[in-house]
Amino acid sequence: MNSEIELKNFCIVLVEPSGNLNVGSVARLCENFCINELRLVSPICDTNSNEAQQMAVKGKKFLNKAKYFSCLLDAVKDCTHVIATCGRKDHGQIPLEKPSKALNWALEASEGRKIALVFGREDRGLTNKELLIAQKVISISLAEYSSLNLSHAVAIILYELHKIKTSLRNNSVKASSPNPANALELNQCLQDAESLLLEVGFLLKHTANARMTKIKSLLQRGEIRPEEVSLIRGILRQLRWALQRHNT
Amino acid sequence: MNSEIELKNFCIVLVEPSGNLNVGSVARLCENFCINELRLVSPICDTNSNEAQQMAVKGKKFLNKAKYFSCLLDAVKDCTHVIATCGRKDHGQIPLEKPSKALNWALEASEGRKIALVFGREDRGLTNKELLIAQKVISISLAEYSSLNLSHAVAIILYELHKIKTSLRNNSVKASSPNPANALELNQCLQDAESLLLEVGFLLKHTANARMTKIKSLLQRGEIRPEEVSLIRGILRQLRWALQRHNT
Repeated sequence: MNSEIELKNFCIVLVEPSGNLNVGSVARLCENFCINELRLVSPICDTNSNEAQQMAVKGKKFLNKAKYFSCLLDAVKDCTHVIATCGRKDHGQIPLEKPSKALNWALEASEGRKIALVFGREDRGLTNKELLIAQKVISISLAEYSSLNLSHAVAIILYELHKIKTSLRNNSVKASSPNPANALELNQCLQDAESLLLEVGFLLKHTANARMTKIKSLLQRGEIRPEEVSLIRGILRQLRWALQRHNT
Repeated sequence: MNSEIELKNFCIVLVEPSGNLNVGSVARLCENFCINELRLVSPICDTNSNEAQQMAVKGKKFLNKAKYFSCLLDAVKDCTHVIATCGRKDHGQIPLEKPSKALNWALEASEGRKIALVFGREDRGLTNKELLIAQKVISISLAEYSSLNLSHAVAIILYELHKIKTSLRNNSVKASSPNPANALELNQCLQDAESLLLEVGFLLKHTANARMTKIKSLLQRGEIRPEEVSLIRGILRQLRWALQRHNT
């Protein structure tokens, strides 16, 4: 297993980062840990600022080649594995995992797959809607005052990833687990389901979000696969057809 | 074992730090991880600067109460356990250990003992003479460009410490995972789904078994819970109702 190729699968996604120093620091970490690229969703800071460039040190190329997106779903649509981070306590039904478990899952992805590690805003993290885009949500749980600096959170997660990768390589374990469904396709499927369930009156506008979150959490825990998403879409299509046939 | 007392044994020692931002960031980490105190050996920066104070966020008290020393030996003379960090390759005969091993050793110290975690200068780390003051020297080994930002190195070591401490505490604690759905109820729910899917023509008699097995596998992997089975039954009931309404 080639250590370089392996980490070249990973990209760091920052959602609405507001600190020049933080974005520069994260670029340095991308270089430290041989990450593939840095993606920025609607940044509220300037990657060309002196502050950002100085903090990046040898990671300036990650700043200069960073890709920009207007929403998280766009930023991860080519990624088969999406892991989001959560520091908030009010994540509702969304299940949190330990970093090591989720990172292991991502490291088992076959070569050539893209994996996104998503970090939220400095002041309020990722919204629950954004967390649901990911197949796995991890939490760096600390005892009390748990608000880590953004770049410290990135450092901790990348180090954890590096450690697991090194130990996997040393154990020379070639693990193979099935590829999970693409985040975009799963989201489209769930939107499709949501509109059908609204039509038949199972969901009401004000309950839709909470109930769909429960369904998505179940599918995420089950690490739903592409062929299973297709199966569900087939069911939805057939149900819609049956309802329309009766209608005419 | 009391988690607070345990980390209250630890202090962070920075030798000749030169960055206001770094020292402020490390103060924030001291607060994040409930460290006892911050000690500074001949700092070449200003802990009262705006930069340092701003980066410290809720850790300002660590900056304001930081203790100053003129040499490392003075800074650690009341500590029974001293762990130094090394990022350089030219450490000669000084043996390097993995962070987890050395931190475990420190965590086994009895209550009331003081433990120092020592970090060197941003540009050239600790001298070999300084490394020899410590009983243990640890290295955060990275593949290539290994120069981590000082506060990132502190974040990684403190997180490792926190993880080991938590796992030591939880070793005797039996993890409690939510109750899974009752097998009988899950099977009844799946039979209900199967008959609906046969009615709408998604399943055919000869494909029903294989496809329902796929759905069941997904739900089992997700360790479906009782309330989720109820949710699915609710969906099935509503779909059946919508189909019948159209029929009459």
